[in-house]
Amino acid sequence: MGGLTVFSWEDSLGSTAKVSPFAPASLPEVPEIPGVRFATAEAGIRYQGRTDLLLAVLTPGTVAAGVTTRSKTCSAPVLWCRRQLEHGRAGALVVNSGNANAFTGRKGQEAVAITAEAAAKSAGCRPEEVYVASTGVIGEPMDATRFTHLLSDLAATARPDTWQAAARAIMTTDTFPKLALRRVPMGSGEVTLAGFCKGAGMIAPDMATMLCFLFTDAAIAQPVLQRLVSATADRTFNCVTVDGDTSTSDTVLLFATGRAAERGAPEVRDAADPVLAPFAEALHSLMHELALYVVKDGEGLSKFVTVEVLGAEDDRAARRIAFSIANSPILKTAIAGEDPNWGRVVMAVGKSGEAADRDRLAIWFGPHLVAREGERAPGYSEPVVAGYMKNGEITIRVDVGVGAGRATVWTCDLTHAYVSINADYRS
Amino acid sequence: MGGLTVFSWEDSLGSTAKVSPFAPASLPEVPEIPGVRFATAEAGIRYQGRTDLLLAVLTPGTVAAGVTTRSKTCSAPVLWCRRQLEHGRAGALVVNSGNANAFTGRKGQEAVAITAEAAAKSAGCRPEEVYVASTGVIGEPMDATRFTHLLSDLAATARPDTWQAAARAIMTTDTFPKLALRRVPMGSGEVTLAGFCKGAGMIAPDMATMLCFLFTDAAIAQPVLQRLVSATADRTFNCVTVDGDTSTSDTVLLFATGRAAERGAPEVRDAADPVLAPFAEALHSLMHELALYVVKDGEGLSKFVTVEVLGAEDDRAARRIAFSIANSPILKTAIAGEDPNWGRVVMAVGKSGEAADRDRLAIWFGPHLVAREGERAPGYSEPVVAGYMKNGEITIRVDVGVGAGRATVWTCDLTHAYVSINADYRS
Repeated sequence: MGGLTVFSWEDSLGSTAKVSPFAPASLPEVPEIPGVRFATAEAGIRYQGRTDLLLAVLTPGTVAAGVTTRSKTCSAPVLWCRRQLEHGRAGALVVNSGNANAFTGRKGQEAVAITAEAAAKSAGCRPEEVYVASTGVIGEPMDATRFTHLLSDLAATARPDTWQAAARAIMTTDTFPKLALRRVPMGSGEVTLAGFCKGAGMIAPDMATMLCFLFTDAAIAQPVLQRLVSATADRTFNCVTVDGDTSTSDTVLLFATGRAAERGAPEVRDAADPVLAPFAEALHSLMHELALYVVKDGEGLSKFVTVEVLGAEDDRAARRIAFSIANSPILKTAIAGEDPNWGRVVMAVGKSGEAADRDRLAIWFGPHLVAREGERAPGYSEPVVAGYMKNGEITIRVDVGVGAGRATVWTCDLTHAYVSINADYRS
Repeated sequence: MGGLTVFSWEDSLGSTAKVSPFAPASLPEVPEIPGVRFATAEAGIRYQGRTDLLLAVLTPGTVAAGVTTRSKTCSAPVLWCRRQLEHGRAGALVVNSGNANAFTGRKGQEAVAITAEAAAKSAGCRPEEVYVASTGVIGEPMDATRFTHLLSDLAATARPDTWQAAARAIMTTDTFPKLALRRVPMGSGEVTLAGFCKGAGMIAPDMATMLCFLFTDAAIAQPVLQRLVSATADRTFNCVTVDGDTSTSDTVLLFATGRAAERGAPEVRDAADPVLAPFAEALHSLMHELALYVVKDGEGLSKFVTVEVLGAEDDRAARRIAFSIANSPILKTAIAGEDPNWGRVVMAVGKSGEAADRDRLAIWFGPHLVAREGERAPGYSEPVVAGYMKNGEITIRVDVGVGAGRATVWTCDLTHAYVSINADYRS
């Protein structure tokens, strides 16, 4: 062990191995997506007895689009990916877990370059066509040569049907793998869209320690793909929060191999092309599902919480109010205690700094109106609302009464287990 | 019990009655300040068996200055005080604990008006010269007639030497009363400055559930006093955070009776008058002491943490970075676990959105340099720094390497006890 840990993965994947109560009952069986192959390895970067290295080999002609953290102290792999997203050509993806290669100085950048070079040689592409992502400890120097020698074997043995293994290899504090699938009619053909992600703590707008990799055989020009991913991330991964903390490593990448064109799917070069609509909708649905898995695996959670804000000055204001509610420690602990403490919702609305009309403010917990017109609702029954709070999934809806702005964000409660995972790790 | 509670005062003042390990060993003996008298009562507003009502009677000619929360959903008493601060004449102060009279609609405003009227009659001033503050449950209708009938007796029996009782009557989740004193040379005379405050949770910039009342016999014109209080609150109460949450009720009021002029102290009408300097310095020192007491009583704390940021673009940027560090749940839990997890400091710097040069960033935990020039410091010894983390008072210093901006803020760790106080209240 030793070193400075960002993730107490031992807690959640080790001896106790508790799985989030919100984990899906089963993982989807994802079919082959032409042009995408995966291989994983136990490189021992930090973890023992589990996979921690993923290589995806992508067919020539694949394009990549993506978004990365807005952190001002982002990791070396994030800086690398941003540069490659400017051209968007892709031949391979390398992901390691156990070390984030963040705040590792020039040596960290060298580790990325070494990785890209080794992967390029193995996958038969140029280093600039290799995307790299790392997750795990911040500040620990990463020795890429501990795993670069494995890449040629991985490229040789990569298979198109090992999605679940790929999703597992990128986990850190995650208690379950996060994998989702959509089949999308496009023109007279059909394309497949699938992906996986990881993330459980340090989750906040602008994505926090969240890696998400999406793959499709659709034939979509890179600039169109980039617009789609940016807009969709804004409504999905940028609308979830666990603890309001933002990681140095967030990365969402979508790779499109274009191979569905061989089977009659259209080639899309214009963002306004109506043939794109079902794909855009499926992408939103898929990213929404994956983003919610991140919240549903929030460190130590016991409740999954949806926060809906309406009546704000505009959508941006609504989102700020929603995040003020979703990130309030004092409200999140009340939810953990199954306490319908709507006074703390009022507090969080006021704290956001956005316009709200105190005398028109209304608050619902699930179907129950608890406050309206600036005071407690006349029909409010505390036993009834306290009963509602015993549910695993809670919705808090607030009408701030000044305009038509709306937003929905997703979060979880703040529990003893969150403190244990993040504090008691060494004891 | 029943009702919606913002404060689980029963936890901290009731059966367990644990006192913060950072409580001062003793309370100061505050002498009479000419023109100020106090009386307290057990009004049973919410609490039983303790005082929950404070009346301060102020001599004619007293002026008031103050600052209030920036919450957009502030309480009825805050709205009232803001209006009276426009003229700044003062004759009485009424404070109740147990009910914040916040989010209580028109009836809440009526409760303030009834209180001011009763206090004015009792103290012999006009209702507009009465300042009102309430702290406790949000959203619970407050029936002021439960205590207004007590005010005339309180005014008749008010005494100048009951400071400690006054400080106790305004407590909610506080585990110790917060009282401080300064004697200040002014011109050829001497003035006294004393005050008390309350606050333990929902503490963040713009003051959160924090009430602070300061009294002096100095003779200072209201506009001068107002400038002093605003500037000093910005460097003291606006630089502390417990949980990043902002209350609806924050109020800092400074009352100056002017009676020291009878004993030769100067009358100050100009903010640039050099005779004011020692008073300004004492006010800063007093408010600093009281603000730190709030953090040192932070709900469930086990560590008192000072966050110093230097090298930022400007002071405003430094403050934003410092608060990003001070409010990070994942860092605060690491501190509770005595883990020198400086990777989370890097994360918090990046999250702030302010300029920072990753390759010039340096971090100290106490005297120990843990990172510099964008990576772990060569001499870093984890056992040594882990040993430092066992201290009760921790200092985190960060040089972000881009400019000359500086800020210092104060916070505490995030512990199991915080979750218990705010979540397990009903169980």
